[in-house]
Amino acid sequence: MKNILGREIPDHIEGYGEVKPFEGAYVNYGNKNKIGVNVSSVAPGEQKLHHGIDSVLDNIELKDGMNISFHHHLRNGDYVLNTVVDQLARRGIKDLTIVASSIFPVHAPLVEHIKSGVVTGIYAAYMSGPVANAVSKGILKNPAIMHTHGGRARLIESGDLHIDIAFLASPSSDEYGNVNGLLGKSACGALGYAVADAEYADITVAVTDNLVEYPNAPIEISQIYVDYVAVVESIGDPKGIVSGTTQITKDPVGLKIAKMTSEVMKASGLVKDGLSFQTGAGGISLAVAAELKKIMQKENIKGSFAAGGITGYIVDMYEEGLFNALFDVQCFDLKAVESCGKNPKHQIMSSSMYGNPNNKGAVVNKLDIMILGATEVDTDFNVNVTTGSDGNIMGGSGGHSDTAAGSKLTIIVSKLVKSRLSVIKDKVTTVTTPGETVDVIVTERGIAINPMRVDLIEQLSKTHLPIKTIEELKEEAERIAGKAKPIQLEDDIVAVVEYRDGTVIDVVRKVK
Amino acid sequence: MKNILGREIPDHIEGYGEVKPFEGAYVNYGNKNKIGVNVSSVAPGEQKLHHGIDSVLDNIELKDGMNISFHHHLRNGDYVLNTVVDQLARRGIKDLTIVASSIFPVHAPLVEHIKSGVVTGIYAAYMSGPVANAVSKGILKNPAIMHTHGGRARLIESGDLHIDIAFLASPSSDEYGNVNGLLGKSACGALGYAVADAEYADITVAVTDNLVEYPNAPIEISQIYVDYVAVVESIGDPKGIVSGTTQITKDPVGLKIAKMTSEVMKASGLVKDGLSFQTGAGGISLAVAAELKKIMQKENIKGSFAAGGITGYIVDMYEEGLFNALFDVQCFDLKAVESCGKNPKHQIMSSSMYGNPNNKGAVVNKLDIMILGATEVDTDFNVNVTTGSDGNIMGGSGGHSDTAAGSKLTIIVSKLVKSRLSVIKDKVTTVTTPGETVDVIVTERGIAINPMRVDLIEQLSKTHLPIKTIEELKEEAERIAGKAKPIQLEDDIVAVVEYRDGTVIDVVRKVK
Repeated sequence: MKNILGREIPDHIEGYGEVKPFEGAYVNYGNKNKIGVNVSSVAPGEQKLHHGIDSVLDNIELKDGMNISFHHHLRNGDYVLNTVVDQLARRGIKDLTIVASSIFPVHAPLVEHIKSGVVTGIYAAYMSGPVANAVSKGILKNPAIMHTHGGRARLIESGDLHIDIAFLASPSSDEYGNVNGLLGKSACGALGYAVADAEYADITVAVTDNLVEYPNAPIEISQIYVDYVAVVESIGDPKGIVSGTTQITKDPVGLKIAKMTSEVMKASGLVKDGLSFQTGAGGISLAVAAELKKIMQKENIKGSFAAGGITGYIVDMYEEGLFNALFDVQCFDLKAVESCGKNPKHQIMSSSMYGNPNNKGAVVNKLDIMILGATEVDTDFNVNVTTGSDGNIMGGSGGHSDTAAGSKLTIIVSKLVKSRLSVIKDKVTTVTTPGETVDVIVTERGIAINPMRVDLIEQLSKTHLPIKTIEELKEEAERIAGKAKPIQLEDDIVAVVEYRDGTVIDVVRKVK
Repeated sequence: MKNILGREIPDHIEGYGEVKPFEGAYVNYGNKNKIGVNVSSVAPGEQKLHHGIDSVLDNIELKDGMNISFHHHLRNGDYVLNTVVDQLARRGIKDLTIVASSIFPVHAPLVEHIKSGVVTGIYAAYMSGPVANAVSKGILKNPAIMHTHGGRARLIESGDLHIDIAFLASPSSDEYGNVNGLLGKSACGALGYAVADAEYADITVAVTDNLVEYPNAPIEISQIYVDYVAVVESIGDPKGIVSGTTQITKDPVGLKIAKMTSEVMKASGLVKDGLSFQTGAGGISLAVAAELKKIMQKENIKGSFAAGGITGYIVDMYEEGLFNALFDVQCFDLKAVESCGKNPKHQIMSSSMYGNPNNKGAVVNKLDIMILGATEVDTDFNVNVTTGSDGNIMGGSGGHSDTAAGSKLTIIVSKLVKSRLSVIKDKVTTVTTPGETVDVIVTERGIAINPMRVDLIEQLSKTHLPIKTIEELKEEAERIAGKAKPIQLEDDIVAVVEYRDGTVIDVVRKVK
């Protein structure tokens, strides 16, 4: 079977089940259902507090085949996932599916648990490091399921993915399970990716190294969703959790791309009062924000909101009055964490509010301009941020597909040639984000506009910007870097790439 | 059938259904379920904004027999309920059930709709004025269902009560349905009673007279729950919405009761660091807060939290550092509204978080001391705040039963004789709150302690306080006021009184 993008996908995938093929980014709206939730109600006088995760596990009926969930706000500093899986392994539990919003190099110990059969399934929006390598090699029993940030909320809320136990790394909690990410040695700010887990899991465990007096206001995750509070020595390594500061690129090529991107944004007509904007924490993305800032200052433009993972740079723009509000699902640096706790219009949002296509309007729907990166782009404007050009998993959508679908103008910023390979391909190795949701590619050697956007082509043709077809860009890149050798793949599927609506947009096959 | 309190209740009530009899305040915890929700998902570019409620109704499939819901944060200033029901009546819709968290005199026009068959059912936690009188006379086709504030959240979240359309009176909203109660001419602060409606209704309509720019941060009710935004001229009369200020009683008898109550609290041992406290907005209740404040100041006591409907008086105590946080489901005056928007630990809560017994621990579970009023108390310590001594409905539980069940020490404060009638009866006309959850009655002529609280009896016996049995208090009151004539009742049931867990604690019968 081929889906609408021409990707070869079986009707049925062993260890995954029936495949619903991707049919387009905007076809799947309408009547949806959020599933019911099991709750064990808590009477006056009942206690939730335990010392150590082991003590909580003693109170839970554990079984093989459970789905256990984690959020990734502690990023590469997270201790909670490894600790929990180790303890479950020690208790002889097998066949676990790890529902982690993202997996980082710090989660390397999972590889042994995969080999031993303790872990047989993984859901993640992003994976990098040893676990991603192990999955790419086909060591995991079932194909990993790669979803988007909004898609993860949809999976959980729709009941497509049932969570038996959610473990919430909690930078601060009181003894009744009111959690926030603002305080404590492991402070990480917004906890947007943990909300659906807390609300929908059969059992929710707040794991904290910072027990505070009741009530832990302001509350990000409420006591009404938390069954147990486990106090531990440390939930993470602050050095791995948030960057002290995020930095604008100093690379002149990156700065050139950022400047060109700002000109594209301006020419689009969207840079005006009421502008909404999102960009990532990467060096070029931040350089785009810096260019936008200059324009907004010069032209006295008051934006509506900036969204996403929030950086100190975006906080500066808010505090300067360039944006009226911030929507924050995750803080990328300490300045963002601090702002989160003090600025009344620094609004925390759940990943469902951020990007779930099944609710009554996600924040991504209100984005004007979205700046995104790419590992590969193909001549249909499909983007790969899931696999490297060697075919192995080294990332994932995160909010890539969600924001691309929602925003009025999605711009991919990238150098044309990376690691001596053309970024532009005939066909991307893996489709993460469909081309119909991508409007413009900006590289240092030219700008390609999606032919569906005739309005943009007309607007940009009036500028001095180097507009080219995507085929011209590809040829130019191949003149520099040569044509990449096709990757030799086996039939084995190591990961299923779900679009935000749960349809399968692509699969990742094992590299020969 | 008699329930555990000896109240005569049929097994089956016409227009209500099978009766689950009340079996005790603490027997019904354990495995519960929150029901699934239907959602019509909203794609990028779709609009929610309408001018006028009629325009929204044009877009909804309306039918006879719908359950439509309203919250009561605009209290006796609310225009939304009347407007919506009028417009539905004009469209010929019949057999509506009004799910209003409370009903006030301003809702008098409902009486005509009840007579005409447009409205045949009512759910409310509190009713006063012409609608309460009409229900008491048996004019409503089905018995009204009187629930608690926490019970209402339980009804909705459990699926026992399905809401077809929720209409949210919204002091401010943006065009995508982010609502808060902090801003605008109809500002009322916290919107705790509206949360379950927004989350669980098939269709949620934000009705606002104050459309603000997107995004309306800080957000109380999120865009992800709202289908339509209807902009109208005015959602209410500010004069009826919140009091300018709430006042401590000046009546010396009331002040005496408050002073005695403070001594009971002190003798209980609960007035110490970490104290949590709730009281109402009535004159004696506020006088109790004033007495507590004096003790806390004098003894340098730092409380944990104050909860409930919040008044300016409680805000003063928080701002003075006597409480670490406020839990607010509803603001009672303008000072509370203002604090709600500026104090980071003035924490808004939903009515589910406040008092739903089916979630993983409501805030009422964490209350040390709760001060409540009463219309009648009987010698089993059962309390009536639902009907007057004439047998007609003039109130309802609100949070009475929820907080009494949750708190460690529930004190009823009342004059012994009101309107020339003894407050203490052999049997209350209607049981709102069961005696097992009530610890102490303080009157100006003596204090009665629930005999189940042997610890309290011992503690208070060491004081000079006038401790009496409840029978002694009753006799004393009857010496002054005489014994009340029993009310003559018909068999017809005009209202069913549900305890917070959904069991039937009593019924209200038509007065002869």
